Amino acid sequence: MPRKIILDCDPGHDDAIAMLLAHGNPDVELVAVTTVVGNQTLEKVTRNALSVARIANITGVPFAAGCSRPLIRTVETAPDIHGESGIDGPVMPEPTLALDDRHAVDLIIETVMAHEPGEITIVPTAGLTNIALAARKEPRIVERVREVVLMGGGYHTGNWSPVAEFNIKIDPEAAHIVFNEPWPVTMVGLDLTHQALATPEVVERIAKVGTGPAVFVTELLDFFGAMYLQAQGFDAPPVHDPCAVAYVIDPDVMTVRKAPVDIELTGTLTLGMTVTDLRAPAPADCHTQVAVDLDHQRFWDLVVDAVERIGDVRA
Amino acid sequence: MPRKIILDCDPGHDDAIAMLLAHGNPDVELVAVTTVVGNQTLEKVTRNALSVARIANITGVPFAAGCSRPLIRTVETAPDIHGESGIDGPVMPEPTLALDDRHAVDLIIETVMAHEPGEITIVPTAGLTNIALAARKEPRIVERVREVVLMGGGYHTGNWSPVAEFNIKIDPEAAHIVFNEPWPVTMVGLDLTHQALATPEVVERIAKVGTGPAVFVTELLDFFGAMYLQAQGFDAPPVHDPCAVAYVIDPDVMTVRKAPVDIELTGTLTLGMTVTDLRAPAPADCHTQVAVDLDHQRFWDLVVDAVERIGDVRA
Amino acid sequence: MPRKIILDCDPGHDDAIAMLLAHGNPDVELVAVTTVVGNQTLEKVTRNALSVARIANITGVPFAAGCSRPLIRTVETAPDIHGESGIDGPVMPEPTLALDDRHAVDLIIETVMAHEPGEITIVPTAGLTNIALAARKEPRIVERVREVVLMGGGYHTGNWSPVAEFNIKIDPEAAHIVFNEPWPVTMVGLDLTHQALATPEVVERIAKVGTGPAVFVTELLDFFGAMYLQAQGFDAPPVHDPCAVAYVIDPDVMTVRKAPVDIELTGTLTLGMTVTDLRAPAPADCHTQVAVDLDHQRFWDLVVDAVERIGDVRA
Amino acid sequence: MPRKIILDCDPGHDDAIAMLLAHGNPDVELVAVTTVVGNQTLEKVTRNALSVARIANITGVPFAAGCSRPLIRTVETAPDIHGESGIDGPVMPEPTLALDDRHAVDLIIETVMAHEPGEITIVPTAGLTNIALAARKEPRIVERVREVVLMGGGYHTGNWSPVAEFNIKIDPEAAHIVFNEPWPVTMVGLDLTHQALATPEVVERIAKVGTGPAVFVTELLDFFGAMYLQAQGFDAPPVHDPCAVAYVIDPDVMTVRKAPVDIELTGTLTLGMTVTDLRAPAPADCHTQVAVDLDHQRFWDLVVDAVERIGDVRA
Repeated sequence: MPRKIILDCDPGHDDAIAMLLAHGNPDVELVAVTTVVGNQTLEKVTRNALSVARIANITGVPFAAGCSRPLIRTVETAPDIHGESGIDGPVMPEPTLALDDRHAVDLIIETVMAHEPGEITIVPTAGLTNIALAARKEPRIVERVREVVLMGGGYHTGNWSPVAEFNIKIDPEAAHIVFNEPWPVTMVGLDLTHQALATPEVVERIAKVGTGPAVFVTELLDFFGAMYLQAQGFDAPPVHDPCAVAYVIDPDVMTVRKAPVDIELTGTLTLGMTVTDLRAPAPADCHTQVAVDLDHQRFWDLVVDAVERIGDVRA
Repeated sequence: MPRKIILDCDPGHDDAIAMLLAHGNPDVELVAVTTVVGNQTLEKVTRNALSVARIANITGVPFAAGCSRPLIRTVETAPDIHGESGIDGPVMPEPTLALDDRHAVDLIIETVMAHEPGEITIVPTAGLTNIALAARKEPRIVERVREVVLMGGGYHTGNWSPVAEFNIKIDPEAAHIVFNEPWPVTMVGLDLTHQALATPEVVERIAKVGTGPAVFVTELLDFFGAMYLQAQGFDAPPVHDPCAVAYVIDPDVMTVRKAPVDIELTGTLTLGMTVTDLRAPAPADCHTQVAVDLDHQRFWDLVVDAVERIGDVRA
Repeated sequence: MPRKIILDCDPGHDDAIAMLLAHGNPDVELVAVTTVVGNQTLEKVTRNALSVARIANITGVPFAAGCSRPLIRTVETAPDIHGESGIDGPVMPEPTLALDDRHAVDLIIETVMAHEPGEITIVPTAGLTNIALAARKEPRIVERVREVVLMGGGYHTGNWSPVAEFNIKIDPEAAHIVFNEPWPVTMVGLDLTHQALATPEVVERIAKVGTGPAVFVTELLDFFGAMYLQAQGFDAPPVHDPCAVAYVIDPDVMTVRKAPVDIELTGTLTLGMTVTDLRAPAPADCHTQVAVDLDHQRFWDLVVDAVERIGDVRA
Repeated sequence: MPRKIILDCDPGHDDAIAMLLAHGNPDVELVAVTTVVGNQTLEKVTRNALSVARIANITGVPFAAGCSRPLIRTVETAPDIHGESGIDGPVMPEPTLALDDRHAVDLIIETVMAHEPGEITIVPTAGLTNIALAARKEPRIVERVREVVLMGGGYHTGNWSPVAEFNIKIDPEAAHIVFNEPWPVTMVGLDLTHQALATPEVVERIAKVGTGPAVFVTELLDFFGAMYLQAQGFDAPPVHDPCAVAYVIDPDVMTVRKAPVDIELTGTLTLGMTVTDLRAPAPADCHTQVAVDLDHQRFWDLVVDAVERIGDVRA
C-alpha cells in the first residue's frame, strides 16, 4: 500500500519536481497539497502549484493555500534563485484545478484526523508556518501523524547564512515548533541535498523521456542551474525538495543518523540554525534524525521513473 | 448601540469579574467568549468560563476553547495567584452551557469576518496565543477589527519578572505578533491595573448588592486578596482584567498615552517586556497606546453597577 | 576627612562640571582623574579633561588616559549632545598639565591598592570600560574600594534607546562586569539626573559668581541647553554627571533605594538596559542601589558653592 | 631564525605537551609563557606551568600569571578531562622558577612592543581572556603582532556544547575581541585537533625516547586517554594544544582554509560558536583562516623530535 503524504510546499523549481515525483511514483500517494509563502509570495506559489498540477495531470487531490507570512519575521522570498514568478524559466500554463475552500492549516488537520493514526506522513519542502500552526491549533495531530520528513536545515551547511538554511531561517519559530513536537522528524538538509546535483547526465536522462512533463523538468533545471551558478557558484543545481519525497518512497536512497536537533532563535549570527548534537550516539528516545549520504544514482532513477510514469499528459 | 466585544480570557478571578462587567454593562455586548491556557490549563479555564456563565446567566453567546499551549514556550500557569482550579475560593457550579464546536481561533475569525469592518473589538485578558493565531490564519481580521484592548504588559511595571508581566511573558511571540499588526492596540498594563485595587470599601460595596453574583465576586476578591498579599505583598488585590473591559465601556475611566510598544523576544533578563518608547511624543502613525492613570471611583462604579444589573440570577 | 575619589570621565559638558564640583568642594578629594572613550574619542575627552584642569587650576592630581574603545561594541560617541570636540561651546585652553605615563586602568588599580581598604570611592561618569578592565586585571580592588557611585542607566528612563542610557549602552559588557562585582554600587541614573535641570535661575546663580570658572560653566550650560532642546526636547538641560559627585559629598542630596540591578546583554530592544527589580524590598545582601529623588536646591547649592570656592583662577 | 612566540596557556595535559614542543623545537623560540584560568583555576594552571618548566628545564623565559576569571561569564573548568590539579596523572614537581612580577597582560603587551613589528606570534591554547585584555589595554599590539595561532573553536565540531568548544565557550566575549581584531588569526580548532590522536603507536614512540620528559609525556597521555575515553568516548585522546605550536613551526603540518570567522554571543544553543562562513571563497581581505587536515605523521614526528632534543633533564 502506498504511503499517504501531505506535501506542504512553495513551488519553486525543486518543489515542482517533488510534486512530480510524488505524483508519478506508485509507492506514495498524494492526499493533499498545501502551499505557504517561501520561495515567492503565497499567491504566486499557490498558482505555481496549480499550474504544476495541470502539467502533471494531478487530479482528485485537494490543493489549499496556507499562510502568507511567517509567524514572527517579515516575509523573505528567494527571487535570486527562483525568479520573480517563483518558477521562472518554463512557461507555466493557466491552472485548471480549483483551490480547496479550506485554509491549508485546516486541510492538514482534517486530513490527518480523518485517517488512522500512523497513516499520514507530512512532507514539508518550504517554511514550516503551516505545519506549526496546525500543531498548535490541533495538538492531536502530533501523535496521529506517522512522521514528518522535511527538506530544510543542515547540520554542517547553510545557504541563507553561514549556518542556516532558507526554509528554516525564514520562519525559525515555526521550525522550533515542528522540531520540538515529539513526532518523528527526518531532516533532509543541505548536507544531503547538495549531493542531489542535476548534472548534465541527469538532465540528459530526463530530456530523453521526451514527454511534456519531461520537457518541463529540463526547463526547470536549465533555469535553476543558471541561477545556482550565479548566486551560489554551483556547477550543477542541487535539487533539494524531491529528496524528502524520495526518502519516503525508499529510505535506502540515503543514510540517516539519529541526533538531537533544535532551532536557534536568539543567535545574532546563528538565527535559524538547526543545531545538531553529533558528539555522541543519540539517546534512545531521540525523535529526530538527519540525512547524511545520498545514493545519487538511486535518487535520480526514482525521479526519472516518476517522470516516465506520468506520461505525456499535455499531448 | 453597544460596542461588540470578543472576550478572550483565562478565568481566573479577575477574568471572571471582567466577564460580569461585560455581561452586566449595557454599553458593551459580548458576542463571543474564547478561552486560552494561562492562569491555569485550557481545560480548567474553559470550565471556569462556563461556570461563570452559569453564575451570571450569560446565554446566547458562543463560548469556544482555544490553544492549550503557547507558540514557543512551555506552559506556565499561576497557581500561586489563582489556585489549582484557576478560580479557587468560590464553589464553582457545574457548567450548563455547551461549548461551541469551533476552535476559538475560528470563532474569532468568523465573528470578525461576519461583522462589518470596525464593528468588533477584541478584548484579550490572557496570553495572546489565540489572537496571534487568528491574525496569522486570517490576516484580513487585522483591518476589520475596530481595536484590540488588552490587559497585559506594563511600561514601568513587571510581575512575572522585574520588567515583564504574566500575560505577555507566557507567550511573548504571540504578543509580538499582536503588537506588531497595524490594528489599534491599547495596552492596559500593570501600571494601570495596580491602581485598580479592590480595597475593603470596594468589597463592601459589592457585598451590599447582596445577590448571588455579588457574593461570588466578594468570594473571588477574598481569595484573590489573600493570594496577592502572600505572593506579591499587596494590601488589596489589583483587579486587572475588568480594566480592559472598562476602557471599552468608557474611555474616560483612564488616561492613555500614545507610544510605540514592542515585545522583547531575545533578552536574557527582559524576555516578554513590553518595551515602550516614552522619550518623545509618539509619531502620528503610532497605532499603540498605553493606559496611565485610572479613575478608581469611576472604575468601581462600573463594576458595582454591572453586578447590580445582572441581578440575582441564582435565586 | 574628605572622601577620596577617582573620577573616571569622558568630558563632556557635565563631566566638566563634575570635575569642578569635585575639585571645589572640600568634602571630597580628587586623587586621580581617568578618561575613557564616550562622549567623544579618547583623544578628545582626554584633552578636554586637561583643559578643564587648567580652567579650574587642578594641580597635583594624576590624570591618565584609558581605553579608546569599548570591550565588544564599536565606538559610539555623542556629537549631537556634546559637539565635535566633546565640549563645544566654550573656548577650551591648551592644557598645561601633563598626562600620567600610566594607563588609566593601572592608575586606578595602583591608587586603590596604595590606599587603605575602604578609602577610595570610584566615581565613573562615562562608559565603564576602564573600571571593568581594572576589576578584571586586579580583582582585589573590588573588596578594597569603598563604593562605586556612577552616573549611568536608569530604572524607568532611557535616552540612547527607549530603555537604555548612553553610558551603559555604549559598553554594556563593561557595565555587566561592574554591576556584578560585589562592591557597593549606587546607580545615579536618568530617573535622578533628569531632575538636575539647569534652569534659567540656576544659570543666573552661577553667572553671578562672575569668575572665570563660573563663566566657563555658564558657557557649558548654554551650549548644553541648546543641544538638549534640539536633540531630546528638554527645556533646560539635565546635568547628569555632577549628581554622582554630589551623592558622595552629601548622600542627603537625593533619596536612594536598594534594589537588584543587572545589565541586559542579549536583548534586541533592551541591550544595555539596567534591569532593576522594584517588585519587592531588596534582599538584605543587595549591593546595588538606585537614586530616586533629587533635592534640586541642595544639589545646585553644592555646585554654586564649589564654583565660588575655586575662585578666579584664570585672572 | 626561529619564530618568537608567546604561549598563553592553562596547563592542562595538552598545554604541557605544547610547552615541550615549543621548548624543544629549534624553529620556535619561547619568549614568554602566560597563564589564564581555564582547564583549572589560575593558581593551579600557573603552578602547573612552572612545574612543566622544571620538568623540561625551561629557563630564561618569563612566566606570568594572568586573569583568574573570564570577562563576563562565571568560571568554568574541566576537571572531568584534566582532573582536580589540572594535570592529574604524573607527579608534578615543586616549581623552581619564580613568576614574573608583571601581570600576564602587561608581559604580553611589553613583549610585543619591545620587539619589532611582525616579530612576535601569539599562541593561545586556552580561553582568550588575557589576549583580549591586552588588545583592549594596548591596541597597538594588534598591528605589531605577526599573527595569532590559537587552539580553540571548530567550524563543524563542538565539545562543550553541540557547536562550541571549551576555550571559546568559557570566555566568548574575549574570543569575540580576538577574532574581530584585524591581526591574522589561525583557528586550530577541533576539526583539526580531533585528528591529532595519541594512538598506542604514538605513545610507544614517545616512551622509547626513555628520558624523564618522555616518561612525563607518556604519563600525561595515559591519564588524558582514560579521561577522554570516559568523558567523550574517544579511543585515543586528541592532543589539541601542540597542534597550534606545530603550525607555527611548520605550516605544512596541516592544511588551512581562509574563511570569515565570528563568535556567537547571544545564541541560546550556540553561545561561543566560532561561526565560519564556508559557503564561498573568502574575500581577499579575510584575516582569519581555519585548520582543516592534519598530517598525522609529520605532527607526531615534530613532537617526538622535540622531546628527544630536550634530553634527560631530570637525571
